[in-house]
Amino acid sequence: MKKPAGEKIAKGPSLEAVRHSISHVVALATLERFPKAKLGIGPTIENGFYYDFGIKEIFEDDLKAIEGRARELLKQGLRFKKEVVTPAEAKKIFKDQPFKLELVDELKKQKKPLSVYKTYDKSPKDPLFIDLCSGPHVKSTSEIDPEAFKLTSIAGAYWKGDEKNPMLQRIYGLAFDSKKELDDYLIMQAEAEKRDHRKLGAELELFMISDEVGQGLPLFLPKGARLKHEIMNFALNTYLKNGYELVNTPHIGSEKLWDRSGHTGFYKESMYSPFGIEGENYLLKPMNCPLHIQLYKSKPRSYRDLPIRWTEMGTVYRYERSGTLHGLTRVRGFTQDDAHIFCTPEQIEDEVKKALKLTMYILGAFGFKDLETNLSIRDPKKKGDFIGADKDWAMAEKALKAALEEMGFNDFSYDVGGAAFYGPKIDIKVSDAIGRKWQLSTIQFDFNEPSRFDMTYVDQQGKEQRPLMVHRALLGSLERFMGVYIEHVAGAFPVWIAPVQAVVIPVSEKFNGYAEEVKAKLEAEDIRLELYSSAETLGRRIRTAEMQKVPYILIVGDAEMKSQSVSVRKRGEGDLGPKPLDAFIADLKQEIKDRK
Amino acid sequence: MKKPAGEKIAKGPSLEAVRHSISHVVALATLERFPKAKLGIGPTIENGFYYDFGIKEIFEDDLKAIEGRARELLKQGLRFKKEVVTPAEAKKIFKDQPFKLELVDELKKQKKPLSVYKTYDKSPKDPLFIDLCSGPHVKSTSEIDPEAFKLTSIAGAYWKGDEKNPMLQRIYGLAFDSKKELDDYLIMQAEAEKRDHRKLGAELELFMISDEVGQGLPLFLPKGARLKHEIMNFALNTYLKNGYELVNTPHIGSEKLWDRSGHTGFYKESMYSPFGIEGENYLLKPMNCPLHIQLYKSKPRSYRDLPIRWTEMGTVYRYERSGTLHGLTRVRGFTQDDAHIFCTPEQIEDEVKKALKLTMYILGAFGFKDLETNLSIRDPKKKGDFIGADKDWAMAEKALKAALEEMGFNDFSYDVGGAAFYGPKIDIKVSDAIGRKWQLSTIQFDFNEPSRFDMTYVDQQGKEQRPLMVHRALLGSLERFMGVYIEHVAGAFPVWIAPVQAVVIPVSEKFNGYAEEVKAKLEAEDIRLELYSSAETLGRRIRTAEMQKVPYILIVGDAEMKSQSVSVRKRGEGDLGPKPLDAFIADLKQEIKDRK
Repeated sequence: MKKPAGEKIAKGPSLEAVRHSISHVVALATLERFPKAKLGIGPTIENGFYYDFGIKEIFEDDLKAIEGRARELLKQGLRFKKEVVTPAEAKKIFKDQPFKLELVDELKKQKKPLSVYKTYDKSPKDPLFIDLCSGPHVKSTSEIDPEAFKLTSIAGAYWKGDEKNPMLQRIYGLAFDSKKELDDYLIMQAEAEKRDHRKLGAELELFMISDEVGQGLPLFLPKGARLKHEIMNFALNTYLKNGYELVNTPHIGSEKLWDRSGHTGFYKESMYSPFGIEGENYLLKPMNCPLHIQLYKSKPRSYRDLPIRWTEMGTVYRYERSGTLHGLTRVRGFTQDDAHIFCTPEQIEDEVKKALKLTMYILGAFGFKDLETNLSIRDPKKKGDFIGADKDWAMAEKALKAALEEMGFNDFSYDVGGAAFYGPKIDIKVSDAIGRKWQLSTIQFDFNEPSRFDMTYVDQQGKEQRPLMVHRALLGSLERFMGVYIEHVAGAFPVWIAPVQAVVIPVSEKFNGYAEEVKAKLEAEDIRLELYSSAETLGRRIRTAEMQKVPYILIVGDAEMKSQSVSVRKRGEGDLGPKPLDAFIADLKQEIKDRK
Repeated sequence: MKKPAGEKIAKGPSLEAVRHSISHVVALATLERFPKAKLGIGPTIENGFYYDFGIKEIFEDDLKAIEGRARELLKQGLRFKKEVVTPAEAKKIFKDQPFKLELVDELKKQKKPLSVYKTYDKSPKDPLFIDLCSGPHVKSTSEIDPEAFKLTSIAGAYWKGDEKNPMLQRIYGLAFDSKKELDDYLIMQAEAEKRDHRKLGAELELFMISDEVGQGLPLFLPKGARLKHEIMNFALNTYLKNGYELVNTPHIGSEKLWDRSGHTGFYKESMYSPFGIEGENYLLKPMNCPLHIQLYKSKPRSYRDLPIRWTEMGTVYRYERSGTLHGLTRVRGFTQDDAHIFCTPEQIEDEVKKALKLTMYILGAFGFKDLETNLSIRDPKKKGDFIGADKDWAMAEKALKAALEEMGFNDFSYDVGGAAFYGPKIDIKVSDAIGRKWQLSTIQFDFNEPSRFDMTYVDQQGKEQRPLMVHRALLGSLERFMGVYIEHVAGAFPVWIAPVQAVVIPVSEKFNGYAEEVKAKLEAEDIRLELYSSAETLGRRIRTAEMQKVPYILIVGDAEMKSQSVSVRKRGEGDLGPKPLDAFIADLKQEIKDRK
């Protein structure tokens, strides 16, 4: 039996109870250090909790001290007791806590039940700490691993998030069931930070965002542009070898096109405002589909022409709020490895299967083997939100389901109501090297545009029929894919796709000539490489190439020149010693071909 | 001594005199047929003349008859005599010609001298015909080859081009010095019509213009998109192998970028109107340069980094009036094989030379060997129209001139005043297969943007310097280049660049399997091909492939299957008989490699 990812066998207190309990102990420790601090709210959050305190400032040293004291307290086996109270009782308990009194009033107004948790040490006398809290909590802190939490940071936060209110100090903490889980999380966090594609993008000189050009509009420096180009070429050539044809369309289109396609109706919020040309309004394309449909309609089509599979590396522009923009993964302009399939109902299941197979191949080539599939369908209770006939939806869902199953994706999950308004779809997520999931590929039915544009083909009986239309993008957005991929490989691109595959370094100026010779020979074999022949020290040049995460560093000096060889340093493996140049080239070409 | 193109040794009457004289004879012949026709204007135009007549209609038959009669008259050795007249005399002469009277009044108002030409037959009595004309004319039509002219068409034309005026009938005529020149011109015309890339674009299914998308925005069908892709790849790969690096930038940029670059000031008329994103105005890019400058400025640059050569197949959008749009050669959105070179003054001459060499290589690969170069410089009398210091202009012109001469372009011509406002430039024209000239490549200095964007590099002495900047596009606009190239090769693309390099045709369904085998084998060798396995007759399928101007047609039947061969038909050479498949592939690959 397969265990769904993330499932946990319950054997101790809930993580929620652990986090609530720790946060109360942290609050207790804080009050010990700052007796006059007023208590704000202290909810649990993803991976831990925070607690707000009405106090002027908390410094790093305080944080360390509070964490240490909280750990001591946890070890003492403190007990928690819940008590349901009336608003009046609560007001009495929190008479010196103005923020808590506000909360009591609010909860009273909302007619919500009130409860407090009292914290006791071993002697059953007065509680050490009381907080307004709905729980749950553990019975005793002896159930908690005192090493499984960590206070991470302090930040100012306005009471209720309103800048007209007083500023409180917020203490953030991580909390897990065990020290191991905390450590794993911290390692993953550190790893994610190291892999941040924005950081690597700058370090490896891949791309930049320019305020003068505009937010969400990345500009690619030579190495990033080359990486994008190589990724694009790999995808495009794969599609062309798999029955797709290339098409090419402009980035703008008349408003009447977008009116007819329905985009100005249904997709307006993601589109930029129109601009005029000789009295006619034009809009930047947010999608390529209506333009591909124009090509379809350039002549009458017959069943013999189908399936048509048209691909375009189409750059589209979509509005995103500036607050949501993020490096390459959330941008305002991006290039899709887009394609549209036009086919007959008899062909559809096979076409979806082929698209899935291609997805597995393409993503697999980049090392994404662990795919998670989703079948997004109509909410049957809200049919009015979706266009298209019942029988079409049934047919399409059946085709998508059958294709998923035939391709071995038996554990796909349904997303009821997650379909696009114009048809059901398959979404595919990958897991990256540190376990994060990213949605990349999508295969979508479209019941909207073929009828809006009155697309037809003549069937074997000579009758006009409406073709089926499928949108599919396998890498999705090249920019987003690059962002994910940079983080997946931490900037250490496999040699087949690396923008610079090798660096040649002569040990001294005397060997610049031979280094040039090596460069020319490698370039003649279409190897992408750089020559570091500057006056800097050998060590420094090697270090630079290593920092740039170049797969191979080829060092050449007297011995190498005499023997027509190169001294090879391989990323991750170190010095491999000298190798005849021809053998190195042959092996490298094989490695590139194998996409290792 | 080299003879400049187009120079002519004077040995007979001027072409202008020939054309004027013929037009009077045509008018005389027209009046013989339509005695009541009123005379409009009859100027000479490129390749001939026209004459407007106030008459209801002239039919094709009339045109034939007029042409025949004019030819007879020409053979009679009619004589022309010029007479200078006063307005009063002219009014008397043309008292029955209301249009001529209007002209006389106009010329009188403008205080221009008036002259008439009188046409006589051999007897010196009354003239056969008198026209208001400033000449020149031949002395006698015996100087004219009566077979060297031809009336080509009739069209309605409003008097003075104003639709409020009466409609006249305009007779168009071609006229040359000799019948041979006329015939050459007619052949060239017919050839140009056959080669019209708009016609071929439809017939070969290369591209379309869609009213729903917008005028001047071509959409590329699979074969056109593939052709564009192959041209682009060839250019790009050539640049990458010649020291260029790839960069990639968005199609839109903030208005503040275009303000700083000066485009909203100096180039506004060619730009589309701005559109807003979160209160900030954005504009479609008409050029890539300011974006490449952003990349340059992403970090401090040193003389060691120079020269930087950055190329981008950048799609730009420029406004053109709808009346001027023409197929692919005049569009509103196009992809440039653009590049910018940033270098030191010491490097500039060599960089221009390299760019010229690359131009010759790139254009030569497409069969354009006959290049005409132009050096566009400042008008020294209008220095105020150009920006940049005198010494910069002097240095740049010197570098461009030296590079032209060193590359063997000793017969370049100067275009004084033809420089861009921001710097001097070299323009390169090609001659196509029927002798027409097209301007494609350009290499331009830019004194504007480096200072506007405060671009710098640190020189060997550690001092900040301004880099030199050169824009260059060698194919120019890919769309325009495609339009020119389609006409140059009349749609019969050489095999190396043809979107479909071969078509496989099984003689009957029985051999579909073998045809598929052939297809797979060719595709494995990256040959672009199609399989025509439809139920249509063999003859019809061959005819279709021929109409599509496919370089190779491979016919397969029983004999070919048994001998693992193909029967080869080569475009322009016909049936070459059977050839072993492996040998065909090897030869084809060599032909592609050689770009024959």
